[in-house]
Amino acid sequence: MKLAAVTVDGVRRAGVVEEDSIALLSTTVDDIVRGAPMGTHGEVLPLAEVRLEAPLHRFNRDILCTGWNYLDHFLESSGKREGQGPAEMPLRPTFFTKGPDTVIGPSDDIAYDPEISAKWDYEAEIAMVIGRDGRSIPEEKALDHVFGFLVANDVSQRDLQRAHGGQWLKGKSLDATMPLGPWITTADSVDLTDMQVQCEVNGVLLQNASSAQMAFSFTRIIAELSHGMTLRAGDVILTGTPSGIGAAREPQLFLHDGDVVVTRVSGLGELRNTVTLTELS
Amino acid sequence: MKLAAVTVDGVRRAGVVEEDSIALLSTTVDDIVRGAPMGTHGEVLPLAEVRLEAPLHRFNRDILCTGWNYLDHFLESSGKREGQGPAEMPLRPTFFTKGPDTVIGPSDDIAYDPEISAKWDYEAEIAMVIGRDGRSIPEEKALDHVFGFLVANDVSQRDLQRAHGGQWLKGKSLDATMPLGPWITTADSVDLTDMQVQCEVNGVLLQNASSAQMAFSFTRIIAELSHGMTLRAGDVILTGTPSGIGAAREPQLFLHDGDVVVTRVSGLGELRNTVTLTELS
Repeated sequence: MKLAAVTVDGVRRAGVVEEDSIALLSTTVDDIVRGAPMGTHGEVLPLAEVRLEAPLHRFNRDILCTGWNYLDHFLESSGKREGQGPAEMPLRPTFFTKGPDTVIGPSDDIAYDPEISAKWDYEAEIAMVIGRDGRSIPEEKALDHVFGFLVANDVSQRDLQRAHGGQWLKGKSLDATMPLGPWITTADSVDLTDMQVQCEVNGVLLQNASSAQMAFSFTRIIAELSHGMTLRAGDVILTGTPSGIGAAREPQLFLHDGDVVVTRVSGLGELRNTVTLTELS
Repeated sequence: MKLAAVTVDGVRRAGVVEEDSIALLSTTVDDIVRGAPMGTHGEVLPLAEVRLEAPLHRFNRDILCTGWNYLDHFLESSGKREGQGPAEMPLRPTFFTKGPDTVIGPSDDIAYDPEISAKWDYEAEIAMVIGRDGRSIPEEKALDHVFGFLVANDVSQRDLQRAHGGQWLKGKSLDATMPLGPWITTADSVDLTDMQVQCEVNGVLLQNASSAQMAFSFTRIIAELSHGMTLRAGDVILTGTPSGIGAAREPQLFLHDGDVVVTRVSGLGELRNTVTLTELS
């Protein structure tokens, strides 16, 4: 099942997406993820006639993120870390967070302010949404805690990411910079073995990898992250980006006003966002 | 004014602390910080007869934290970073986060599980609570956005902090490990110029410094952190710990079951927490 969020007559509602239509529900995705009944199906609208929003709007905490989860991305970045990162691929996943105000919808503009950063970069990723609270969840039970999967772009500011003592929060948390969606595909409808993760900028394919290349699996990420730390229904976890980021290219390629970023994961759908001059500073 | 949280007859309420009594209010600290009226004063109880809780229970996002904000703490840690941190004091503050489930009250037990970590350490800090939303807040207006100040201990697991690719989240986010309180002293009642920050373990003074030694001031932290990222009423920001942490001592000193940790900031009060064996794994 694919669960999307739309606003109809000023009220935010969940909807079930099927082919080219959306059947509205009487509650929100935020509530459904936290265990609320889906309510009754209401009006069915053509998908082309609605504007999908970020599926989630209410967050328990920061967006949880995984770094360096594709070996080729670790290697491409190794010359650019300026002594701030480890020399060898870590034996355990790297975790950091993004502020919840980063989240935008699948066709919203990515806020872009060159006064704040000169190095805006893209990172296509698969995201998970937790559907059941748990702490120290063993790998073999990890998928029982996942409500579903969706597409994210962890848009980052490389200069800010490095300027603050080597901790990444600040270069990952600018308002209205993380596209999320287009809907949540529930875990029972996803084949995790070989999902293709892609990012295109202005029609040029710049990232293209399979989830099979992940160093740490979805279940390992949940086991490690929840070790001693409760994960709660509604928490969002990004699972890392493959190689091909702008900062690691020769020459480097950064995002600018007007660029169209398409982020796509096979089976989960596609985000299409335009980088747009916005005063953040 | 000092605002504390207590539960009376099963209902969580704010209270105004004066000398050795607390005057109960009809709302919560979480709501007051977000702009709700304080409501009427109700019953007045002797402070000795109530158990103060963490002043805040509802969080918009992760707890925001500042790293290496006292030069002597940066220097004491410089030999222990194993190539994962910068060699020189960063020109901008270092920011990271802790999960909201870390928060405990001023006399609650600090959860301790030696199965998860062998290196439990203490970090006395001054915390700020945001009282007014804002983005890219200039330094000269920063204090207008602060509701008040309180005491925190950023209890950390040094092995976890280093094992996850150099990003600190995982070694800073175990459930029930961060004492916060004992109350929020509103900004108008605080003299920021020379606050003494102390940590004692089992009666031995291990950290003792003045806020005057901070590399980045309270206002600079807010300006840098909010640059492009909205801070919201209810957000909590820790401002860094001085030297004297256990990992940097010779020999190293880590926390164990039964240790009593007292965290104190002049003008803001004192936390007294016992490290207590708890199954987190």
